[in-house]
Amino acid sequence: MSQTDNNRHRWCVIMCGGVGSRFWPYSRVDRPKQFIDFLGTGRSLVQMTYDRLTPMVDPSHIVVVTNARYADTIREQLPDVPAGNILLEPARRSTAPCIAWAAWHIAAADPEASIIVTPADHLVTREREFEKAVLDGFDFVGRNDVLLTMAVTPTRPETAYGYIQIGKPLGENFYKVKTFTQKPKKEMAEVFVSTGEFFWNSGIFLWKASAIIDALAAYAPEVNTPFADNRDVFGTAAEAGCIARIFPACPAISIDNVVEKATNACVETVAYGWNDLETWSSLYDISPKTRDGNVTQNCQVLSYNSSGNIFCISGDKLVAVDGLNDYIIADAGDVLLICPKIHEQDIRHIVNDAKVAYGDKFQ
Amino acid sequence: MSQTDNNRHRWCVIMCGGVGSRFWPYSRVDRPKQFIDFLGTGRSLVQMTYDRLTPMVDPSHIVVVTNARYADTIREQLPDVPAGNILLEPARRSTAPCIAWAAWHIAAADPEASIIVTPADHLVTREREFEKAVLDGFDFVGRNDVLLTMAVTPTRPETAYGYIQIGKPLGENFYKVKTFTQKPKKEMAEVFVSTGEFFWNSGIFLWKASAIIDALAAYAPEVNTPFADNRDVFGTAAEAGCIARIFPACPAISIDNVVEKATNACVETVAYGWNDLETWSSLYDISPKTRDGNVTQNCQVLSYNSSGNIFCISGDKLVAVDGLNDYIIADAGDVLLICPKIHEQDIRHIVNDAKVAYGDKFQ
Repeated sequence: MSQTDNNRHRWCVIMCGGVGSRFWPYSRVDRPKQFIDFLGTGRSLVQMTYDRLTPMVDPSHIVVVTNARYADTIREQLPDVPAGNILLEPARRSTAPCIAWAAWHIAAADPEASIIVTPADHLVTREREFEKAVLDGFDFVGRNDVLLTMAVTPTRPETAYGYIQIGKPLGENFYKVKTFTQKPKKEMAEVFVSTGEFFWNSGIFLWKASAIIDALAAYAPEVNTPFADNRDVFGTAAEAGCIARIFPACPAISIDNVVEKATNACVETVAYGWNDLETWSSLYDISPKTRDGNVTQNCQVLSYNSSGNIFCISGDKLVAVDGLNDYIIADAGDVLLICPKIHEQDIRHIVNDAKVAYGDKFQ
Repeated sequence: MSQTDNNRHRWCVIMCGGVGSRFWPYSRVDRPKQFIDFLGTGRSLVQMTYDRLTPMVDPSHIVVVTNARYADTIREQLPDVPAGNILLEPARRSTAPCIAWAAWHIAAADPEASIIVTPADHLVTREREFEKAVLDGFDFVGRNDVLLTMAVTPTRPETAYGYIQIGKPLGENFYKVKTFTQKPKKEMAEVFVSTGEFFWNSGIFLWKASAIIDALAAYAPEVNTPFADNRDVFGTAAEAGCIARIFPACPAISIDNVVEKATNACVETVAYGWNDLETWSSLYDISPKTRDGNVTQNCQVLSYNSSGNIFCISGDKLVAVDGLNDYIIADAGDVLLICPKIHEQDIRHIVNDAKVAYGDKFQ
């Protein structure tokens, strides 16, 4: 198959439905993380994801799956994505139903489609290496009926990620999957990293539409069957009505559960500077630091005896801070959060307490 | 002299020219502390001072001395003070020139005037006791040619205040002054408090206009002479022009220097819940606390593992704080300050650094 043919069948699915509260108060139910210009670049995370893919995938082949409440935001932030490519989930149902719908939708338009599936809110720092990895991946899945996961060379014994152990080599940077392991303990993670056989599951996948539909049919029929039973509606005016009926009834299953069961799971090992931006600490880690070792977003900071902090401030504000180390200081206009980075897992409790005390006002 | 006569000759001078930076960023050059509703009562400190005095002094006898830049603010905040009673200093020259001008101005209208001189920005918590002390003080200075300082029973060995040692009793709560001591060291302050002979200099004075003019003539002639040489202008259309000429040439001398030299210095000992509100800590100390031991001004606080903080926030904001103890958290809209209370003396350095870095923008 020629490069041009490959190009013609390349598609991208951006999963954009998250409502994560870990970046509260900066991320909010009405403005989740993926829509925020977190790095002060002038582009939101979903826009950066889009920008990263368009060199390989034509905007007419980019499909965005998001929650119905974010339809206007998507149209505003990604004006070049055709309206018919914006799939509005009527309910939140984890990643397998999302990916199933997108696969059936794309297959209706292009039965030979190869798809890269990516979260909207991850960060890639080395875009040229990313581009090469994606092109190699498209080539690999175009030639093989496999489920390909991009797996990142680990740089530390992270316990918050899933790990993939590589098996038989299938070419440069391509391997059969040997094992999947979710969030190992610290000691285990250290062993994983030391062996050189384990890689982080980045949550970025490549496969032919037909391959993922086959896998869903085999390993998650309760998700796939409603779509298969309505295969004629995709790409027609009847699609939205059908989805409104079948989607909320889908079980909330992660695509990881499908891939982990598949006998044709493969990995492409990559090292393009990936960060899932799941936490304030991860944003701190990847951001440039001031001389004092602080990260400042959208603000000027006068810092005294203060290091290791991340300041994420809405509006052009001066922050003067003395004697504060390793804190998150996030000011979203109506909410100011001051929290040690090591307590960031508790932010969701704070968000919940705010809901109990003030209803939806600060959610 | 009858009570009615006394009442007729009672005057008040509110010294309102401060531009203190210790409450930065909440207090600013354009909105110094005395004009802020610091306690969330709906009245600024100068309004609270005015409200405290009007039961004893008619608004037509209240004179406000302030900097020319605050003329509009005074007119807005104290609309019942006659325009002719607002004395606008063309330059900042400490308290002796301010008090000299006010005394000459009042003496021109009422040669028998007795005057209470008070800072605009102190706090009194027990107003009934304050009222009794002021009435007793007016009575005392009406009958005696003395310089009377209100001296507060100390409640702790404070090192930031001046102390007055009392001498010969002159009636209930009235004494000759034995010594003045500026800001003693801790050990000395502890001795002072333990003896029961030492009181805090509150900076509130009472005297006849003639008595303070005599004292200025004797102990600060370089301040008094320019006013004495122009005694005919006060209360006339020529006053402002004369002041514009003579006031900037006055040396910046504190009234303390005059009172300390005077042989007729007396004190009235008082215990009406006085706080000079010079620092964030003093505001913390006098404010009601949450169950967690925090002080919250103009904001809702969700507090976790946090105590001893003072939150002073502009706008109706939610603050969520974890693991922060004994800090000042002040948000003035364009500036956020986070600083340990024990470092509050360094805030003026921060203000200066902000000036160096950003000019007048955040001053």
